[in-house]
Amino acid sequence: MRTFTLLTVGLCLAGLPALAQPRSAGAPDPKLIEDVVVANRVLADLGVVDGFGHVSVRHDKDPNRYLMSRSMAPALVKAEDILEYDLDSVAVDAKGQALFLERFIHGEIYKARPDVMAVVHSHSPSVIPFGVSKTRLQPIYHMSSFMGVDVPVFEIRDVAGPASDLLIRDARLGAALAQSLGQGAAVLMRGHGSTVVGASPRQAVFRAVYTEVGARLQAEAMRLGSVTYLTEEEAEAAARANDTQIDRAWLLWLKAAQRRSMAG
Amino acid sequence: MRTFTLLTVGLCLAGLPALAQPRSAGAPDPKLIEDVVVANRVLADLGVVDGFGHVSVRHDKDPNRYLMSRSMAPALVKAEDILEYDLDSVAVDAKGQALFLERFIHGEIYKARPDVMAVVHSHSPSVIPFGVSKTRLQPIYHMSSFMGVDVPVFEIRDVAGPASDLLIRDARLGAALAQSLGQGAAVLMRGHGSTVVGASPRQAVFRAVYTEVGARLQAEAMRLGSVTYLTEEEAEAAARANDTQIDRAWLLWLKAAQRRSMAG
Amino acid sequence: MRTFTLLTVGLCLAGLPALAQPRSAGAPDPKLIEDVVVANRVLADLGVVDGFGHVSVRHDKDPNRYLMSRSMAPALVKAEDILEYDLDSVAVDAKGQALFLERFIHGEIYKARPDVMAVVHSHSPSVIPFGVSKTRLQPIYHMSSFMGVDVPVFEIRDVAGPASDLLIRDARLGAALAQSLGQGAAVLMRGHGSTVVGASPRQAVFRAVYTEVGARLQAEAMRLGSVTYLTEEEAEAAARANDTQIDRAWLLWLKAAQRRSMAG
Amino acid sequence: MRTFTLLTVGLCLAGLPALAQPRSAGAPDPKLIEDVVVANRVLADLGVVDGFGHVSVRHDKDPNRYLMSRSMAPALVKAEDILEYDLDSVAVDAKGQALFLERFIHGEIYKARPDVMAVVHSHSPSVIPFGVSKTRLQPIYHMSSFMGVDVPVFEIRDVAGPASDLLIRDARLGAALAQSLGQGAAVLMRGHGSTVVGASPRQAVFRAVYTEVGARLQAEAMRLGSVTYLTEEEAEAAARANDTQIDRAWLLWLKAAQRRSMAG
Repeated sequence: MRTFTLLTVGLCLAGLPALAQPRSAGAPDPKLIEDVVVANRVLADLGVVDGFGHVSVRHDKDPNRYLMSRSMAPALVKAEDILEYDLDSVAVDAKGQALFLERFIHGEIYKARPDVMAVVHSHSPSVIPFGVSKTRLQPIYHMSSFMGVDVPVFEIRDVAGPASDLLIRDARLGAALAQSLGQGAAVLMRGHGSTVVGASPRQAVFRAVYTEVGARLQAEAMRLGSVTYLTEEEAEAAARANDTQIDRAWLLWLKAAQRRSMAG
Repeated sequence: MRTFTLLTVGLCLAGLPALAQPRSAGAPDPKLIEDVVVANRVLADLGVVDGFGHVSVRHDKDPNRYLMSRSMAPALVKAEDILEYDLDSVAVDAKGQALFLERFIHGEIYKARPDVMAVVHSHSPSVIPFGVSKTRLQPIYHMSSFMGVDVPVFEIRDVAGPASDLLIRDARLGAALAQSLGQGAAVLMRGHGSTVVGASPRQAVFRAVYTEVGARLQAEAMRLGSVTYLTEEEAEAAARANDTQIDRAWLLWLKAAQRRSMAG
Repeated sequence: MRTFTLLTVGLCLAGLPALAQPRSAGAPDPKLIEDVVVANRVLADLGVVDGFGHVSVRHDKDPNRYLMSRSMAPALVKAEDILEYDLDSVAVDAKGQALFLERFIHGEIYKARPDVMAVVHSHSPSVIPFGVSKTRLQPIYHMSSFMGVDVPVFEIRDVAGPASDLLIRDARLGAALAQSLGQGAAVLMRGHGSTVVGASPRQAVFRAVYTEVGARLQAEAMRLGSVTYLTEEEAEAAARANDTQIDRAWLLWLKAAQRRSMAG
Repeated sequence: MRTFTLLTVGLCLAGLPALAQPRSAGAPDPKLIEDVVVANRVLADLGVVDGFGHVSVRHDKDPNRYLMSRSMAPALVKAEDILEYDLDSVAVDAKGQALFLERFIHGEIYKARPDVMAVVHSHSPSVIPFGVSKTRLQPIYHMSSFMGVDVPVFEIRDVAGPASDLLIRDARLGAALAQSLGQGAAVLMRGHGSTVVGASPRQAVFRAVYTEVGARLQAEAMRLGSVTYLTEEEAEAAARANDTQIDRAWLLWLKAAQRRSMAG
């Protein structure tokens, strides 16, 4: 509702810079567009997203803009579907297309975290159970080390009350989610999904994939008895080491996405 | 047995309108046929149905008719396999083909629920365990919100006694199942499967898919400890929001089904 | 070791009818060969077998002969790989090929059970845990009803002692397994796998598939709390009903196997 | 860090044989290269490795050399990516390519175990939970018998302290891992993965695959109650029997890898 209010105000008060239709920061690096398109395909290929979920990247020409597809299934995203948004999550040119209701996840995190260059929101299946449980998600092996030892859970009831539709459908909810994320790499969203961030689309995808895998393995391990988790120091060291290896996985995922694209 | 009795009576007493061979309501909208064919493929693609299960749609020209394939595996259904049935689940023209033993699920639900336009019956694997357990299926996240907080379980023993074959093989059992469903979106069937309904084939498919996913995630979450489920208010709000987003998933599923069809 | 002894005796004492190289019963119905080839592919497609496991059919011209591939991965079996065996599991003409070490599973069951026309042996993954546990495999829904309410577990230690390699590598072990199977449809093999039988390759495959699915669903259901299983009467009635529906699944599986074959 | 130190020393002190750039043992048997390439594909196909993990084979011309790809995702490895290393894990000719940080796993095991001809390191998902738990991995069925009844777990904290990045990034850690492996077929690595060895690439792949499957089945079985594991004698006998059957699975895996290769 707030969304429509903002847009209406924006349309009515054209001229007030903060709410007016934003201007484009210019054409982004085509490689950035390619990475965000591939990111969509990869996340779908690996089951992190299904018909829902979205991934964005901060504009390389202007830190106050970000790039994300129109509202559509990630597996189908092509370069021409990528739109530019300002950090209030207003599209520079929506081209008459529907936008993601939850684009405020992205805009508000980019506002709060200048270091973040890419954001993935998903309903990654193995992560959902940790979001509705008191059991903390923790790094069980080096591949999920980036999540750190204190992954927050965002409870939308604390902000939106007991009758919300669980969606981050305005800037206020987006800002609350960003606050819950803090300086971390991932935030779980109770009854909804999760959001991970990165310094690039590749790192954000890598983290989204291994948040899913790590959650699945932790749940399995807990069924065997007490679990030895990574220490904070181990997690930090392993995350640094993995950051140098992201392209090894990315190249594999890219090839699979290209093969899929040729087939379809 | 009741089925054969009804049919025999129908053949013997041709002329009694209620039991005679029903007349066609005319050609349905081809888009409706396409949607029910795609629905079959999608449900198979996503593992909601295997060789068994069926999906129907109410006829757009006559609310007292519905459309469903002859007895066959859903993945193989083509437009020419779709037959027309009256609400007693008698085929207008069976074309000499075998019919689903359990078509009464569909006819009796269409009788009891004028708002229902499509029905999916399946042995959706993650749902089966909830049907044989005292553990209630509940919405764990917004995607399964449509099921509401009180999903009924149909116990066929209450109607057919302790020695049935568990199939809804006549109108009496179909009516009992419809009564168990009540005004809800889904009903579990103990020792058998589940049935979900919708205002369109797309909504019914969406609900069948996320009943399966929701059940899987709930089972996982319960293993982590106590679970925070959606409140009734959250479930209602989220279901309303999701209803505006169904085509995003449908378009993805359609493309996958088309690709599969081309391949095969 | 017993195997080699038997063969050696057979070669040395050529002339003793029981142990001599058996004579062929003649060419089997090509449709039978086709069904056993398809059965191999289907079982591989559906994950009931991997590189190991085998399926046989009794010869239609002679109840004292059965047909099964040479020792090879089921997914790769073609018509020319099918060999004829007598019920002592001696190949009529091995064509210089290696034979399954465990072919005695098949021969001894055909001896003990004249009603059995096809046998599937596999390491079907969801069934293995029930073979090593005190928890009984039971029919949780109509699709697994054929297994009945008292599925036996064969403990090879009772026959071969504590140091066997767990394989049914001679007629004595095969006969003991057949005895454990009794008049049932399935027998679990502790620390090894399972064997199911049928009145046709199609029924045996159907049963192998739904033994696997039923085991998986039962394990899931048990984690939710106490489970309502099918009564003996329900299981019998449902098994009879399902037996009329096998071809619905078989046709689907056949199409998938053919597509796979064309691709490869 | 130790790695770079060694390399620097090697470059500075060229002439000291132990640390100098190693000389090639000559061209290996092309069939060995083919097996290690196929091994990479197979392990990826079967989900034992993802973008990470590696497999090596000892050089057939010199037991002090081994062959392994440059640092890359296993699914993409081709013959031209295979490099030669000495047992200090220095590449004979790195061709300017990045090397696996953890190649010391391979070199140190080849030093300690003259019988070992191939090594697989992976993050095989079902095995990870056993590495972080007090629950011992044990053979639940004949296919996982090779692991024996006492699979060791390597705790890197015992060697590298509480703040390592969990990687085997130098010879000292590799030697400690090799010591933990002892005379066994597999060693779990806490918070990281596992390593299996074999007398050939085929046996090492076979063992890696059935370590994964065995772990998954054991976890499932434990949820059903107390488990009857293979005795030590059964495990030994079954392992010997399986060793004669490896090519049955290998041929299947090879065909699948070739099909995949043609497609991509």
